Amino acid sequence: MNHKIKTLLAIFLISGSYSFAQSDDKIIEDFEPSSVNQPGHEYPMVNSEGRVRTQIFAPDANYVKLDIGGVKYDLVKNEEGMWIGESAPQDVGFHYYQLNIDGASVPDPGTLFYFGACRWGSGIEIPSDDQDIFAVKNVPHGHVHEILFPSESTQTSRKAFVYTPPGYEKETSKHYPVLYLQHGYCENETSWARQGHANLIMDNLIAEGKAKPFIIVMTYGMTNEIEFGGLREFDITPFQTVLVDELIPYIDSNYRTLKNQENRAMAGLSMGGFETKLITLNRPDVFSYYGLFSGGVYNPEEIKNHKNLKLVFISCGSKERPDGVKNAVSELQEAGYNAESYISEGTAHEFHTWRRSLHQLAQLLFK
Amino acid sequence: MNHKIKTLLAIFLISGSYSFAQSDDKIIEDFEPSSVNQPGHEYPMVNSEGRVRTQIFAPDANYVKLDIGGVKYDLVKNEEGMWIGESAPQDVGFHYYQLNIDGASVPDPGTLFYFGACRWGSGIEIPSDDQDIFAVKNVPHGHVHEILFPSESTQTSRKAFVYTPPGYEKETSKHYPVLYLQHGYCENETSWARQGHANLIMDNLIAEGKAKPFIIVMTYGMTNEIEFGGLREFDITPFQTVLVDELIPYIDSNYRTLKNQENRAMAGLSMGGFETKLITLNRPDVFSYYGLFSGGVYNPEEIKNHKNLKLVFISCGSKERPDGVKNAVSELQEAGYNAESYISEGTAHEFHTWRRSLHQLAQLLFK
Repeated sequence: MNHKIKTLLAIFLISGSYSFAQSDDKIIEDFEPSSVNQPGHEYPMVNSEGRVRTQIFAPDANYVKLDIGGVKYDLVKNEEGMWIGESAPQDVGFHYYQLNIDGASVPDPGTLFYFGACRWGSGIEIPSDDQDIFAVKNVPHGHVHEILFPSESTQTSRKAFVYTPPGYEKETSKHYPVLYLQHGYCENETSWARQGHANLIMDNLIAEGKAKPFIIVMTYGMTNEIEFGGLREFDITPFQTVLVDELIPYIDSNYRTLKNQENRAMAGLSMGGFETKLITLNRPDVFSYYGLFSGGVYNPEEIKNHKNLKLVFISCGSKERPDGVKNAVSELQEAGYNAESYISEGTAHEFHTWRRSLHQLAQLLFK
Repeated sequence: MNHKIKTLLAIFLISGSYSFAQSDDKIIEDFEPSSVNQPGHEYPMVNSEGRVRTQIFAPDANYVKLDIGGVKYDLVKNEEGMWIGESAPQDVGFHYYQLNIDGASVPDPGTLFYFGACRWGSGIEIPSDDQDIFAVKNVPHGHVHEILFPSESTQTSRKAFVYTPPGYEKETSKHYPVLYLQHGYCENETSWARQGHANLIMDNLIAEGKAKPFIIVMTYGMTNEIEFGGLREFDITPFQTVLVDELIPYIDSNYRTLKNQENRAMAGLSMGGFETKLITLNRPDVFSYYGLFSGGVYNPEEIKNHKNLKLVFISCGSKERPDGVKNAVSELQEAGYNAESYISEGTAHEFHTWRRSLHQLAQLLFK
């Protein structure tokens, strides 16, 4: 698994310039509890620099480390047996992390748990200027349905989450467009609604009149078993069959959707962008809006026969390959396509880049 | 917190006769991975005796313990730095547990995480003869909606989960009865659908024609802040307001419900049973079916003015106070009430008792 993750990082993750906390760094003492802590837990905390401070009671441990952003930071034991310490400043947004106690990698019991890095484990939220986009506000809220849909090709009942916009249950004659939205490698079908807050982003945009109400469908992209060294031989067929031939018909038959290409979008982050690209190229008859978040680009030649294509949206963090994204979109625009780029300022290959990307894309869809 | 939990146990939990694994116990070597492990994880495992065996890599630890059922079992380190060991046999069904590494209580990173014991932490499933009641089968599946409903009394948007039976989205003219179903102390609104599998129990019963399709609503009972020493002074009013005056109107306005007392039930486990009793006594005009799972009893005098009461269902595990439940139900029956008791064989104050209780109650509701 570790090898896979490293290879993944080599392929998808670009930047990540980590500044180590030096012993003479002055730490600003304005720490507050992370917004994604377990109920009643004060730690972990975050300060205005984006440093993470955590603590754990481990009176008989030889050492405890905070393992975040690819760096392990030593915690220090106090007289009561509590280990405490902090990381260097982290980028704004959401990060997966863990503790290491005498060599054991374990979740920090202070936090809620998220599926990322191929495991259910700890997460932390570094406040950002624009976190308001996914705040729980006093606006009408959509619902997130957990569903099991039948899949003949895999002989399983498969899980998906379906966001229905505010009013869906009441306005029983209205039909809606649908965005199929994919997570990244080492994430799963829960990631977009939990750490991505796709539902809250939509609730807020709809309340502000900035997005058309639409349904979002999030399922497991069958990505986590992929050997990344073998990406070129990656076979999209099994997932394409599940998505296009099984899930879409289930959604169209169980939800009040607009059942045509013009009202169907697909987007994904990282590996999910790669899947979006492969599926839209293989099946140019299914979706009219394509979104790649930190997940590659299209060139004009690849999509020249896509007659019902209405929008190509490509994004990444400013700490990834922003020039690659901007150049690709310029080329598409010059070739006459409706293409948009978006660069998330100050973020890398992590979920805040993708929350912002969804926030941008949602305002362009189905208009 | 520990004090609260101990007091809770003193009040609600009765039996629990734990047999310690002796060094000369012969352990049956037929361990298999627990069904609620993280993807790709072999450990923890369970054998046919119900013993739990787990392992964790902690090369520099001084000791590691498996903490389950109120007992801490020592694990033993092998040459590679892996700690491994097992518990005494556990009751069938679902148990919360944790690891202890050099004094630090942490989740076992091998398992999925559940909210119980007032924390998100590890869970394990000991196979039972009747686990088929919540198996994922090739039958039509209902959906579990995560919703946010507005609560004026608490000035918050509050979370709830809503199970809609198979076909709900399609049969848009049909209206359904509703069961309001409460978790226990130190659990939350996620517990009934995750470790309780309320949705799968219903899907299977409906497919077999054994239960009428109905909606289930599960929200947070505001219980976990209660000081259990102060149970007699426990004020149900805040939660009663949220449930009866805010959540029910939201559900009735957003879902296709049958909006009357005859088509409304309330049930709860442990502390949720206590809440069910208090709310149904305070508001005899709201529900027609009452269910207490390991959560107290009604006496005939208490409900003598409940004109629209159709059923009282009271249950517990055989390792709790089965005689108390049976006697209370006999008294109710003698007084002319439609009352049913159910005793879960071989289980104590844990979720398998409550899954089975729901399985029984669901077959009696709204008929």
